[in-house]
Amino acid sequence: MRTVFHQQLDDLKAGMAGLCDLTGAAMAGATDALLQPNLQAAEEIIDRYGDITGECARLETDAFTILARQAPVAGDLRAVVSALKDVADIQRMAALATHIARIARRRHPHLAVPADGVSYFAEMGRIAVHVSEDTKHVVLLGDPEQAARLRADDEAMDDLHRHVFTTVMDPAWTHGTAAAVDVTLLSRYYERFADHAVEVANRVIYQTTGVRST
Amino acid sequence: MRTVFHQQLDDLKAGMAGLCDLTGAAMAGATDALLQPNLQAAEEIIDRYGDITGECARLETDAFTILARQAPVAGDLRAVVSALKDVADIQRMAALATHIARIARRRHPHLAVPADGVSYFAEMGRIAVHVSEDTKHVVLLGDPEQAARLRADDEAMDDLHRHVFTTVMDPAWTHGTAAAVDVTLLSRYYERFADHAVEVANRVIYQTTGVRST
Repeated sequence: MRTVFHQQLDDLKAGMAGLCDLTGAAMAGATDALLQPNLQAAEEIIDRYGDITGECARLETDAFTILARQAPVAGDLRAVVSALKDVADIQRMAALATHIARIARRRHPHLAVPADGVSYFAEMGRIAVHVSEDTKHVVLLGDPEQAARLRADDEAMDDLHRHVFTTVMDPAWTHGTAAAVDVTLLSRYYERFADHAVEVANRVIYQTTGVRST
Repeated sequence: MRTVFHQQLDDLKAGMAGLCDLTGAAMAGATDALLQPNLQAAEEIIDRYGDITGECARLETDAFTILARQAPVAGDLRAVVSALKDVADIQRMAALATHIARIARRRHPHLAVPADGVSYFAEMGRIAVHVSEDTKHVVLLGDPEQAARLRADDEAMDDLHRHVFTTVMDPAWTHGTAAAVDVTLLSRYYERFADHAVEVANRVIYQTTGVRST
């Protein structure tokens, strides 16, 4: 039998899944804006961040209302508290996508990324969107295998981040300091985006299985 | 009359105040390690991060136990949920201090910061430690004036961050790409450190006064 509590928790998860969709779309748009480059796309991503924070505030209120009205205990309480933390992580992912759009806007009509680095950032963007989709499915289904795939994507992202960092630090870097700074920050934003997704996945899996990932 | 709930909440706040002390000490140590430079100090800060995450986990468990046993509602519930978020912000501050220590370690025995930038980072470090102390007092006392001072410190930090960023981006920068990357990341870590403190302060003040800071 579905209790009122479980119905409300399912609604909260559905809202978080929608938030993952918004965040994934923001990251896809930010990467397009960065690599085409496209000023209008960048502006749209920056403008839409307010909608995402509004949605986060709504989900936090919903979680708070469940705590206040249902006074869940044990695993049920843990599920709601975890959801509150997940929303904060997903909001931060959206903020990082917005930071990428801001760098694209700042450099327009020039590319913020040197031409020979475009393929790396395209790959980071692709992984980040994939990670958003996996986060959504982990939130909805609590599947440990999907969470493991998400962590594998995070490792691929870390490898790309290290590669970009090594390239920028190499004395053979010829694109100047400003490009180095942009590339460093961009790479960090993509890497942190995946880190937050892993936080969500680890929390959901701990919630579902009692096993803490390291 | 003090209820069991309020005693437990006070204990939680005292624990968070201790966490602010640990975080401020980590930031002071990381800045020393960076600017002297001092490898042993850097190693100590990196090693001690595990103690801080352990303390955060303990405080989260305490908050969770209060929710489970006392089932607080309205303002009391909000206080405990806010404390959970505050702990996450303060843990992130400690992580950022650790990132600074890692850069100091990576560059040792060289300075990661060019000699003419040392005074800026010394000032950022001073503000960050001050911000940790203010965060502690805001958590303990919920004083809106102290929160306002903390926000003023955050603005001073933002000004320094912008100045450093402009300096690095200037074609007159002569310290090379690797130093530019280090300085960019360091400056961002200090800036984010203060941002998280402002998040805590805004949450505490909203909790205390019902007025949301922007």
